[in-house]
Amino acid sequence: MHSPAALPRFAVAALNRSLAAELQQKIDGKTKPPGSLGRLEALALQLGLIQGRLTPQVVAPHVLVCAGDHGAAKAGVSAYPQDVTWQMVENFLAGGAAINAFAGLAGMQLVVADAGVAHDFGPREGLQNLKVGAGGTANYLEGAAMSEADCALALARGAQLAREIAASGCNVLAFGEMGIGNTASASLLTHCLTGLPLAQCVGRGTGLDDDGLARKQALLAQALNAWPERPQISRLPLAEGEGGRGSLDLASAIASQDAYRILARYGGFEIAMLAGAMLAAAEARMTLLIDGFIVTSALLVAMRIAPEILDYCVYAHCSHEAGHRLQLDWLDGTPLLDLGLRLGEGTGAALALPLLKAACAFLNDMASFESAGVSDKTSA
Amino acid sequence: MHSPAALPRFAVAALNRSLAAELQQKIDGKTKPPGSLGRLEALALQLGLIQGRLTPQVVAPHVLVCAGDHGAAKAGVSAYPQDVTWQMVENFLAGGAAINAFAGLAGMQLVVADAGVAHDFGPREGLQNLKVGAGGTANYLEGAAMSEADCALALARGAQLAREIAASGCNVLAFGEMGIGNTASASLLTHCLTGLPLAQCVGRGTGLDDDGLARKQALLAQALNAWPERPQISRLPLAEGEGGRGSLDLASAIASQDAYRILARYGGFEIAMLAGAMLAAAEARMTLLIDGFIVTSALLVAMRIAPEILDYCVYAHCSHEAGHRLQLDWLDGTPLLDLGLRLGEGTGAALALPLLKAACAFLNDMASFESAGVSDKTSA
Repeated sequence: MHSPAALPRFAVAALNRSLAAELQQKIDGKTKPPGSLGRLEALALQLGLIQGRLTPQVVAPHVLVCAGDHGAAKAGVSAYPQDVTWQMVENFLAGGAAINAFAGLAGMQLVVADAGVAHDFGPREGLQNLKVGAGGTANYLEGAAMSEADCALALARGAQLAREIAASGCNVLAFGEMGIGNTASASLLTHCLTGLPLAQCVGRGTGLDDDGLARKQALLAQALNAWPERPQISRLPLAEGEGGRGSLDLASAIASQDAYRILARYGGFEIAMLAGAMLAAAEARMTLLIDGFIVTSALLVAMRIAPEILDYCVYAHCSHEAGHRLQLDWLDGTPLLDLGLRLGEGTGAALALPLLKAACAFLNDMASFESAGVSDKTSA
Repeated sequence: MHSPAALPRFAVAALNRSLAAELQQKIDGKTKPPGSLGRLEALALQLGLIQGRLTPQVVAPHVLVCAGDHGAAKAGVSAYPQDVTWQMVENFLAGGAAINAFAGLAGMQLVVADAGVAHDFGPREGLQNLKVGAGGTANYLEGAAMSEADCALALARGAQLAREIAASGCNVLAFGEMGIGNTASASLLTHCLTGLPLAQCVGRGTGLDDDGLARKQALLAQALNAWPERPQISRLPLAEGEGGRGSLDLASAIASQDAYRILARYGGFEIAMLAGAMLAAAEARMTLLIDGFIVTSALLVAMRIAPEILDYCVYAHCSHEAGHRLQLDWLDGTPLLDLGLRLGEGTGAALALPLLKAACAFLNDMASFESAGVSDKTSA
C-alpha cells in the first residue's frame, strides 16, 4: 500500500551516560550549595553528556528558520493573509524581524530556508532555496497536504542542511519557522501523534478572535473527518491531571511509517524540513534547541522516527499558544523560559541560548570548594 | 524616642508616563502580531518610560554584590559556617564564583562591597571597603542587629556607591548579596514588613534539612518574641488565594521610620546597604534588576522609604527559596525567569540581563509593518 523505500533513514544514537557520575561530581564540587543553580545544573549535565566531555561548550550556534505556505491558509485558519509568509522571509533577509534582533544578540548565525513558500524569490543571497512545492502545500481539507515523496524530499533536504551546519562546526542548533496557517497544521499533527483532544490542541495562532478560533476549530475537525482512514492512536486512559509519561508509552502504537503519513497529510513543508533537520542534528550529536508549538510538532514527528532524539533536546520556551504546554507535558519536557511569546521564528530559542552558555560557563569557569578554599556544609 | 535626623533622605521621582502611548504604538507597529513578544513588550515599555525615550538601551550594566555577616548565624540558622561569607568574597575577587561567570557572560561589571563581613581583608583591589561593623551584625535574638546610626550609615554608603556607579554611565544596576545567615534575616524583615506569616517566610536557605529548618523556624519565632514592642502590621484580612494588591495598601500602615527600625533590629549590613543603593539608583533613574529573596527583602525596606521605587524595578528571577514567591506576589511583581536557583550573589539578575537587552533590541532594531512592506492583520 505504501512504499517506505523513499523515506530517509536516521540513526540517532542513544545518549551515552557513562560520564554522568563524573559530571555530577564536578557540578556538586563547585562553590555553591548543591543544587542551588537549579535548572542550569541539569542543563550542564545534559550538555556534557551530549558532547561526551566534562567541559561542554556552545560553539557556533545556529538558528534554522524554515518557511513554507499552507493550502489551508486560504480557508481562513489564520488572522493574516498568506502573503505575509514571503513578506516575512524578505524581512528575515533584510534583518528586520525579531529573530534577526535576538539571534544577533545571542551570537547565533541565522539560516533561512525556503521549504515551500508560495512566492518566487529568485536567487537570493542568504536564502537557502530548498523549495519542495513552489505553491505551498495542498489544502488538507481536500486531500493530502503533500505527497509522501515530497514529504520524504522535505525531510531529506532538511537533514542535508543540518549536516552542512554541523560540518561548519556548530554544536547547538535552534529551530524556528514561518508559515501563515502553520499553527493549524501543528494542531492536527499534535492531535494525531499524541491523542490529545483536538480542541485542546487548537489556539489563536497569530491572534484569532473568538469567531476566528471557532472557525479554525470547525475547519480542523472537518480536516480530520476528511481522512477517516488515518492512523489512530489509542485514547488516553489517564485520569485528568496525570502526566504524559504513561501516554508516551501507549502512544508508541503510532509507528514511524504512520508518522510519515500523518505528516504528509496535515503537515507543512517547513515542518517536514524541520523534522528532517532535527533528526540529522541529533545524528550529529548536536544539542537541539526546540522553540514553540510548531517546532515541537515537528519534534513529535521526529521522535516517532527516532525516539532517542529526545535526549538531545532542550526546550527553550513555553509558548502562549495553548497547545504547546500540552505538548511539553506530554513529552515530559520543561521549558527554560516562559515569557508569553507566541511569535515563532525561533525567537524563544534565541532568547534561551544565553542560558546554555551559562550552564557551560559555571561548569567550566567556577572554582571548586577545594580550589577556592571555601568551607563545605557544616553537616558534611 | 527615636531620632530620624540621621536617616538619609531619598527623592525618587514617580515614573513619567507621558511617552507611554508613543512607546506602545512603536511596539505595536513592529513586524509581529500585536502582543506576540509577551513579557518583552511590557519590559520594553517600562525601560522606555524609565529612560524617558523611545530608544532605551542597556548601557554599562553593573551588578552590585554586598556582603555582610550576621550575629545570628552562630545560633544555627544556616547549613554553612560563617567563614563562608569571607571565603566567598575572596572567591568573587578571584573570579571563581557563579556571579563571576554569569556577569562575564552578560557583559556586566561586578562590584563587590564589604558592608560588614567579620573578616579583615586588608586593602584589596576590586573590593569596596564600606564596612559598617567589623564583626558583622549583633545577634537579633538578644537585641538589635545594628544601631540605628549604623543602619543609616549602611544605607548612606550603599547610596553613595550607587551614585558613583550611575556617574560612570551605567543605567541598569543589578543587586546581589552574600552573607551566611541572611535568608533568616530576610525572613524576619519580610514578615514584619508585609504581615505574611513567619512560617511561610522561612525556607531552607543554602540547604537546611528538616531538623535544621525546624530549628530556624523556632529561632526566628524567638527573635520576634524578643522584640514585643516592634511595629505591628495589620493582619491580612484577605481570603486565601487573593492577590497582594489589597495587602499592599493595608501594609502601608508601616511608615518609613518603622521600616528603618525593623531593618536595624533584624537586618544585615549588606541588606541595609542594598536598600540604600536601590534608593539612590532609582533616584538616578536607573533600572533596578532585583534578584532573589534577600535582595527583595531589601526592596521591601526601600519601598517603605520611597514607594515610587517599584516603578524602576524589574524582577529577574523567582528563587526556589520559599518566601520569594510570596514577596513577589505581594509586590505584584512577575519575575522574568524561574529556573529554581537559590544561590544569591545576583546570579538570577545576571541571567536575566540578556532579556533586557532583547527588549531594547526588538524596539530599536525591528522593522515596522510599514517599513518592511509586510501586510497587517486581515481583520485590520
